[in-house]
Amino acid sequence: MIKVGIIGGTGYTGVELLRLLAQHPQVELKVITSRGEAGKPVADMFPNLRGHVGLAFSEPDARALAACDVVFAATPNGVAMTHARALLAAGVKLIDLAADFRLKDSALWEQWYGMPHACPELLAEAVYGLPEVNRAQIKKARLIANPGCYPTAVQLGFLPLVEQGLVDLQHLIADAKSGVSGAGRKAEVHTLFSEAADNFKAYGVAGHRHLPEIIQGLSRAAGKAVGLTFVPHLTPMIRGIHATLYARVNDMNVDLQKLFEQRYAHEPFVDVLPPKSHPDTRSVRAANICRIAVHRPQGGDTVVILSVIDNLVKGAAGQAVQNMNLMFDLPEATGLAQVPVLP
Amino acid sequence: MIKVGIIGGTGYTGVELLRLLAQHPQVELKVITSRGEAGKPVADMFPNLRGHVGLAFSEPDARALAACDVVFAATPNGVAMTHARALLAAGVKLIDLAADFRLKDSALWEQWYGMPHACPELLAEAVYGLPEVNRAQIKKARLIANPGCYPTAVQLGFLPLVEQGLVDLQHLIADAKSGVSGAGRKAEVHTLFSEAADNFKAYGVAGHRHLPEIIQGLSRAAGKAVGLTFVPHLTPMIRGIHATLYARVNDMNVDLQKLFEQRYAHEPFVDVLPPKSHPDTRSVRAANICRIAVHRPQGGDTVVILSVIDNLVKGAAGQAVQNMNLMFDLPEATGLAQVPVLP
Amino acid sequence: MIKVGIIGGTGYTGVELLRLLAQHPQVELKVITSRGEAGKPVADMFPNLRGHVGLAFSEPDARALAACDVVFAATPNGVAMTHARALLAAGVKLIDLAADFRLKDSALWEQWYGMPHACPELLAEAVYGLPEVNRAQIKKARLIANPGCYPTAVQLGFLPLVEQGLVDLQHLIADAKSGVSGAGRKAEVHTLFSEAADNFKAYGVAGHRHLPEIIQGLSRAAGKAVGLTFVPHLTPMIRGIHATLYARVNDMNVDLQKLFEQRYAHEPFVDVLPPKSHPDTRSVRAANICRIAVHRPQGGDTVVILSVIDNLVKGAAGQAVQNMNLMFDLPEATGLAQVPVLP
Amino acid sequence: MIKVGIIGGTGYTGVELLRLLAQHPQVELKVITSRGEAGKPVADMFPNLRGHVGLAFSEPDARALAACDVVFAATPNGVAMTHARALLAAGVKLIDLAADFRLKDSALWEQWYGMPHACPELLAEAVYGLPEVNRAQIKKARLIANPGCYPTAVQLGFLPLVEQGLVDLQHLIADAKSGVSGAGRKAEVHTLFSEAADNFKAYGVAGHRHLPEIIQGLSRAAGKAVGLTFVPHLTPMIRGIHATLYARVNDMNVDLQKLFEQRYAHEPFVDVLPPKSHPDTRSVRAANICRIAVHRPQGGDTVVILSVIDNLVKGAAGQAVQNMNLMFDLPEATGLAQVPVLP
Repeated sequence: MIKVGIIGGTGYTGVELLRLLAQHPQVELKVITSRGEAGKPVADMFPNLRGHVGLAFSEPDARALAACDVVFAATPNGVAMTHARALLAAGVKLIDLAADFRLKDSALWEQWYGMPHACPELLAEAVYGLPEVNRAQIKKARLIANPGCYPTAVQLGFLPLVEQGLVDLQHLIADAKSGVSGAGRKAEVHTLFSEAADNFKAYGVAGHRHLPEIIQGLSRAAGKAVGLTFVPHLTPMIRGIHATLYARVNDMNVDLQKLFEQRYAHEPFVDVLPPKSHPDTRSVRAANICRIAVHRPQGGDTVVILSVIDNLVKGAAGQAVQNMNLMFDLPEATGLAQVPVLP
Repeated sequence: MIKVGIIGGTGYTGVELLRLLAQHPQVELKVITSRGEAGKPVADMFPNLRGHVGLAFSEPDARALAACDVVFAATPNGVAMTHARALLAAGVKLIDLAADFRLKDSALWEQWYGMPHACPELLAEAVYGLPEVNRAQIKKARLIANPGCYPTAVQLGFLPLVEQGLVDLQHLIADAKSGVSGAGRKAEVHTLFSEAADNFKAYGVAGHRHLPEIIQGLSRAAGKAVGLTFVPHLTPMIRGIHATLYARVNDMNVDLQKLFEQRYAHEPFVDVLPPKSHPDTRSVRAANICRIAVHRPQGGDTVVILSVIDNLVKGAAGQAVQNMNLMFDLPEATGLAQVPVLP
Repeated sequence: MIKVGIIGGTGYTGVELLRLLAQHPQVELKVITSRGEAGKPVADMFPNLRGHVGLAFSEPDARALAACDVVFAATPNGVAMTHARALLAAGVKLIDLAADFRLKDSALWEQWYGMPHACPELLAEAVYGLPEVNRAQIKKARLIANPGCYPTAVQLGFLPLVEQGLVDLQHLIADAKSGVSGAGRKAEVHTLFSEAADNFKAYGVAGHRHLPEIIQGLSRAAGKAVGLTFVPHLTPMIRGIHATLYARVNDMNVDLQKLFEQRYAHEPFVDVLPPKSHPDTRSVRAANICRIAVHRPQGGDTVVILSVIDNLVKGAAGQAVQNMNLMFDLPEATGLAQVPVLP
Repeated sequence: MIKVGIIGGTGYTGVELLRLLAQHPQVELKVITSRGEAGKPVADMFPNLRGHVGLAFSEPDARALAACDVVFAATPNGVAMTHARALLAAGVKLIDLAADFRLKDSALWEQWYGMPHACPELLAEAVYGLPEVNRAQIKKARLIANPGCYPTAVQLGFLPLVEQGLVDLQHLIADAKSGVSGAGRKAEVHTLFSEAADNFKAYGVAGHRHLPEIIQGLSRAAGKAVGLTFVPHLTPMIRGIHATLYARVNDMNVDLQKLFEQRYAHEPFVDVLPPKSHPDTRSVRAANICRIAVHRPQGGDTVVILSVIDNLVKGAAGQAVQNMNLMFDLPEATGLAQVPVLP
């Protein structure tokens, strides 16, 4: 059994991580820390966990965490980096579900996240936890930067095109729509039910923190710098991301459907749909899967990729568990066999 | 492995049954019949099942069904009763998720369901599949009438009071609210998104088919005829039933909290919450559990019980699987360990 | 033109009041104060008002308010009472949309609202602004306590029965369901989209602040103290209240439909529906109207009343404007002719 | 008073048209026809109209329609064209809210709508009812093709750029999101609440009927054929369209904000928001207004336009009334002063 600790865990990625770990056959949940909620049984905060998680939140405790095999940080940005050195020194693996280790360039990180980085020397070692790109390195990693939700959906959608250089790399467009849980469980006016329900809007058009993360990943895949316009939107649903991706193809003769099918033929958590498909976000609800459809409308030179994930699963907690499985040499799908919930 | 067949299965109880059976370790899904959809892969209709259910719908085929150990009928009312005699004769157990065998009185059934009953002689044998009442009979049954969604939530909430005769049995009130999936997957105007979203209404106040079913169950528990006012409402969510129950207590000194806790102490799928609780329907979303809270507001003589279930799970497919487990001597919770999905 | 001031106005009753006043032909909006938002154009906070409301929020300013004919307080509880003496002394009428003047008994008020009352001597003078009960007094009033949303829906539903003493007055039951806007625009976790969407729950079963208000109103109508069990619920829609009311009738021969039709025959904003109706909350969305249906299911002795309003209109801002019209001798429906928005 | 008739009117554009006409000071509603609902009071089908519309649906009656000044067709595609000749011959103006007269090329129309056109000779005369483009012609028109909802949002967003030839006209991208009411009030599975709620999906990527309509309009504005990729999506809200538009600018020095502000400076129903804005669809809910924001993210050469309307108002019934006002020389905003409903 893998001894698991969680730092934070009072937000939506936290409760989703707990849901998945509670069903994972090789995990023993040892400790979950929250300064604000110490003493409170986890199931009192998240009643879905009654009967499944007996633990209470505890004060952060370096010794308890150091006794774990792996620690997940399900915290706001800027917290995991204050724990990383000590955990790694104690021989504990760290999977950060926040953004602390996602960018390789510490100056760029500090620019987008507005704070100094607490351990820039670890950025080089940290492995970006997108198994479809970095599976081999993840297996050997001590420190995982679990990808953002938008970056997961967008990169998986663009990768086959970008890796092969089949599209105009300077003018990629990602029009992405997220359910409201992506904004977290903080009390804020703009995510109140009465603000976000029966409403649709774009946000962060001038620049969103996931932009440099996506550009970094796609540039690495392309072997050169890519240009991306990324427009996120808030849509009135709880879970789900739908990324609609646009790119100009260089070569009208490539069989794009086949390209995608081959690229992901052996991926357990990427499902390329048949031609002419339109994936629903609900078709991946509560499960660790990305479904992708490939279109070239009206036979033109613009390719349209539709990519959907559950932002809390393949876009956060599920991918984190997938990474853990790889790091501990378990079958990659262990504990991740849930069937999506529809309707 | 239990060889399982499904008749129907193109509605919401069908897809939910498939989701649960696909994750059940002792089930082999052999056949699923649908006259209208024969030949269509199940996963083409329900994309959440891609990679989990490989079967296609087939034409109804008596031989294929007769080769099963158990058949679930996830059909409109009036279909299962046309299959019952043949299946039982072939030694196949039948679990009907519709209403064909729920009422013991065939005249009453015909009055509420508006058609002649095809096999009234089986009504006496059929076991009403509420394990919290009929566990012993279910284990020996050949034919199960799986309870309705409202009846499950309402009966589990009233049972401890009614069995002990602690309330005015002539004036029970059940104010129940259901998510829209309870109305099924038929194309109808009143359940369109643009009709049912951002809206709330009562319906069927003059009389709903679940009324005689609840009265039958509570009367049996009470040992005499009860009187019930039952008002169902449609609430703009997909899954979930919240029953708010009112009754006048005879004896102000009974510890109602303790009564409920003791009644359900050994029930794996009924969770009595601590005093002063208000269960969310989402705390049971996608899981086979009923959560109940007990109140006596302002110290008055009116007891208020709050009872929530997922209408498609404990109110339909999950309870059907629970019944199957009992009928085949499996641990009752086999395949039903899913943690509710929140948020 | 009536010179109007608003204190507060940054919440949902505020924006709704502004929407209605902007369309009112006899109103000139002079000042809107908000300590927190002073200087901000109202339309920057509420973009629906762009092109309709040119004013900016200003610091509270006694002189500017004193120059108005009427001031609406759309503030949290406890604010209006600190302005009341000065405004009345300056000859300004005050309509409080919060709860400061709703209860006649200051001790009861302090018990439920948890603070000392700043001007208990005004409680006797304040007129409870339910025109269907107090029209004559409203016309002469200087100070209006605008009713709560639940109390409006529940009282209008019970009044004809209670005024005539036709039901068991000791055991009234009000099972009420509210859209989330009823909880206001404060940033709180439990009203986040991801908490309140696709979910249904009761709250405040032990005691809700609207309970004493409803009891006060119904007791006055009955001529003696009534007993009420009041259970509010949160339903995933933005606007709307649906009250389902239960009472035991004394006399089975009364024509309840006729009773309701006669009671409200001359009321411009109460619509008694034909027998067997089930009012949708959306049938009153964004309009100042209460629709009521009367049922006696199965011919029993329990009457079921269904009463719906838009909590922000007939349950708050619309009723406040209706009261203003009465106070200034305008036709009662001036500025309130909006057709409900459906779908 | 303008004597108005309506053909159809049992769908969402119909009820919205009735809501607006009932509040229009210069309109007398004379007749509304529906073969299927003849005899039924309109307010029985649409309870929001109780007390506002006294008419009942009647059998189609050429004489009654011929006695009107103007007839609105709120029917499925293919119906208005069967009435057009007779109405025009009788001197009645016709405003078609469906698609029968939107395309100038009858062959193209027949290809996309899959039926022969009943009066192709009228296509040349019909005026495309987008006042921001065709105001002068609308004033003189007998026959108006009221624009589609997507085409209104997309064209208003692209027009300033396309008219000036400031962008790559061959590679326009319109990523559009619609509320579910855009799919109409027909009973269909994919628009059921339990299918469309808490879900997001693209549809019609291969080709949607609004594609040729948008291309026709933008090509006319550009003075040459444009190329467009149009991807519509279904988002779980009732009303609203959000179009996110992408184009490559030719000249990085143009002040795009100013361009838009000048283009729409005198338009009563187009609101260009300040720089850096993100319009909410709810900011236009139930009102006849299009709000637009202009972005050029990260200073790149891709312009991003955000354009929102209420699909049933500026995208259908409101625009139809705006056209009627123009045709009858009324002030353009008559009856269209409703403030958007928020929240």
